[in-house]
Amino acid sequence: MAAAATASYPTISPKHNLSFSTNNHHRLNKNVLGFVSENPIPIRSLSLSCSGPAKHSMKVSATSAATPMVETSKSSSDDVPTIVDVDLGDRSYPIYIGSGLLNQPDLLQRHIHGKRVLVVTNTTVAPLYLDKVVNALTVGNPNVTVESVILPDGEKYKDMDTLMKVFDKAIESRLDRRCTFVALGGGVIGDMCGYAAASFLRGVNFIQIPTTVMAQVDSSVGGKTGINHRLGKNLIGAFYQPQCVLIDTDTLNTLPDRELASGLAEVIKYGLIRDATFFEWQEKNMHALMSRDADAFAYAIKRSCENKAEVVSQDEKESGLRATLNLGHTFGHAIETSYGYGHWLHGEAVAAGTVMAVDMSYRLGWIDESIVKRVNNILKLANLPTTPPEMMTVDMFKSVMAVDKKVADGLLRLILLKGPLGNCVFTGDYDRKALDETLHAFCKS
Amino acid sequence: MAAAATASYPTISPKHNLSFSTNNHHRLNKNVLGFVSENPIPIRSLSLSCSGPAKHSMKVSATSAATPMVETSKSSSDDVPTIVDVDLGDRSYPIYIGSGLLNQPDLLQRHIHGKRVLVVTNTTVAPLYLDKVVNALTVGNPNVTVESVILPDGEKYKDMDTLMKVFDKAIESRLDRRCTFVALGGGVIGDMCGYAAASFLRGVNFIQIPTTVMAQVDSSVGGKTGINHRLGKNLIGAFYQPQCVLIDTDTLNTLPDRELASGLAEVIKYGLIRDATFFEWQEKNMHALMSRDADAFAYAIKRSCENKAEVVSQDEKESGLRATLNLGHTFGHAIETSYGYGHWLHGEAVAAGTVMAVDMSYRLGWIDESIVKRVNNILKLANLPTTPPEMMTVDMFKSVMAVDKKVADGLLRLILLKGPLGNCVFTGDYDRKALDETLHAFCKS
Repeated sequence: MAAAATASYPTISPKHNLSFSTNNHHRLNKNVLGFVSENPIPIRSLSLSCSGPAKHSMKVSATSAATPMVETSKSSSDDVPTIVDVDLGDRSYPIYIGSGLLNQPDLLQRHIHGKRVLVVTNTTVAPLYLDKVVNALTVGNPNVTVESVILPDGEKYKDMDTLMKVFDKAIESRLDRRCTFVALGGGVIGDMCGYAAASFLRGVNFIQIPTTVMAQVDSSVGGKTGINHRLGKNLIGAFYQPQCVLIDTDTLNTLPDRELASGLAEVIKYGLIRDATFFEWQEKNMHALMSRDADAFAYAIKRSCENKAEVVSQDEKESGLRATLNLGHTFGHAIETSYGYGHWLHGEAVAAGTVMAVDMSYRLGWIDESIVKRVNNILKLANLPTTPPEMMTVDMFKSVMAVDKKVADGLLRLILLKGPLGNCVFTGDYDRKALDETLHAFCKS
Repeated sequence: MAAAATASYPTISPKHNLSFSTNNHHRLNKNVLGFVSENPIPIRSLSLSCSGPAKHSMKVSATSAATPMVETSKSSSDDVPTIVDVDLGDRSYPIYIGSGLLNQPDLLQRHIHGKRVLVVTNTTVAPLYLDKVVNALTVGNPNVTVESVILPDGEKYKDMDTLMKVFDKAIESRLDRRCTFVALGGGVIGDMCGYAAASFLRGVNFIQIPTTVMAQVDSSVGGKTGINHRLGKNLIGAFYQPQCVLIDTDTLNTLPDRELASGLAEVIKYGLIRDATFFEWQEKNMHALMSRDADAFAYAIKRSCENKAEVVSQDEKESGLRATLNLGHTFGHAIETSYGYGHWLHGEAVAAGTVMAVDMSYRLGWIDESIVKRVNNILKLANLPTTPPEMMTVDMFKSVMAVDKKVADGLLRLILLKGPLGNCVFTGDYDRKALDETLHAFCKS
């Protein structure tokens, strides 16, 4: 399977494989930080050769910074990041993607404007990467002082009480408008830190350092920030863009398998809604991704960020197109809210929600049965659920979906597949019977 | 004095005088809602003739909408509002100013996009104006449904716990992204409702209906929203512009004297920082304002909004110029935070803070003594304090001022007068000795 993978995507900077974690906690596998020079093609060579097809033409460049790499063994501080630009006028910013980027202080320091930084992280990630990030922010830069606030880990803490801890720390530390907030962690940390940065003194600088697949391929890009309300997910927040996103793919070394698979649900989403070629690549390379092949992951992250950047550039505030990124999320949010945060990961709920959205699309006669099968197959290859938890009822789905952000004037709009693979619609114009049938097909009551 | 007032400013729509309230509570004086046709010049005639001098040339138009008024007794629904435009590109919006505007449903309804409205108000204002506003939103417009949330009244409730009540109501009412939040009340309501609108579902429509002088001349215009933190004022919030601001000057009929005077502190501020002609007009007309002369108030509100609109148009996010609108506010916030919200009104604290800023400017040798005297005189005419409360200490000032939003990299920047009347600077480049001397001059310890 590894050979098939190599044949079907450009191999990039494959100095080491990601570690395989079998437990449910982040852990630092120091072994994998060594360099195995199996393939000398540097990341930068990727930039012009492997862009997948974009259905919407947009200025989204994946360029390489700094100088070419030479084909020798070297310290990771020499790594050249792949850069995906998010084009939003005066709010544009780069996404740096690569191995060992936290060993390149300049990447972060060039985006720090004042003298004060607040790193927002959690109890799981702090022991692994906080020192490294503080070092990257301060080495050779003695004028900068760094504070940190370590939040409890988990979606159930993505609430106003926990957010207030960030404000408390910022204010007690007397941070001012020229400070920078740095989100170090997964999607929950990124969303909360971003909303705190949007709101503190009515807006301060903000940098994303995502450490999970979910955050690296989706939530850290595009400026959606916010917290949950007891009645629904992400109901309070802001659109607020970071100064940059720094994705050090080495941080995946410490990611538990379940978290890794959860992020793949969003990778699969991009293929389904707008990038059939990427979906086909995933079908061929899911085994490589599940065995943490570094090349496969670097490509999946880059291609996902490119897809997201294109969509966000065209529709920053989700007036239409951007909503398509929420394939499966309306069903998924209902699962997360009803089942209780912490039981299922976001991507697990999205996976089951995607199967439901695809089922409904098929019932509407909008897609072939073959797509239904391929979606089920790829999610199973990714060890993701393809049905909601048994406790979910039709009424649970309906009551949470009623407060979804995509309701407009009382009408629930959904993202549904329509046409050949890679095509979708965002619409409230569908037969309610199909929705009911899907809900009943997936719920016992 | 009334004659002098008439001579020194354009008389406008003077159908009725504002009532004189002698107690400390809002009350509705129905008598003053009758029409006394002392002077037939309609508001619209004001639009081209009485703009004060603007030191910064900007596109800020004060135009009149709809058709000319005729010189007859008429219902207030015929009143033509003065319009001040806030020019912010695709976030531009009009400020409607006039008597009886809440009787003109179209002014509000043209800015409602969806079918759902949430009015945010407080226990004092709701009994006076909530029905009227609901009527204005719904009359002839049966598709629109209006919810309301009535918060406790007072600066001490401008906190996260109270803000959550707005989110709770919006979510329980299943409002969606096409809804509109309407702020009905003074500055606290406007700031909280605005921040809630900025954050609910990452941003929904928002309309300001300010009912105090403070809100009408200052806080409702320009998009600053937010809440207080126990360690300081307005430390959590957003820049978020409304769809429109509707100022029905009749709402001042129910405003207590102390609240009315509090708002005048901000009117005086505009004269001091950028509009000497307006300050001179105020010196001549303070008695008319204090006796609630409707013409004087209409002019003071319009000219204040024009000044604010000009500044905000040039510097929406307060990178420099806009900070000058905070003359006296850094000292004033220290008073409000230390003394406890509810003892002094915002404008009262700003008045004392203005005297302190002017004192410091004089100690620095930046202004003539005559300005110091004129500032003290006009504030006394407005029944505003010219010294901080006796309990304030130098340390209290210093500890609150250290977390002011205008601190940058540890340096406190202040707005100070410099040069002839109507000129100021926003600077951290001043002799610390002058600040110490001012603090010691106004504090016993």
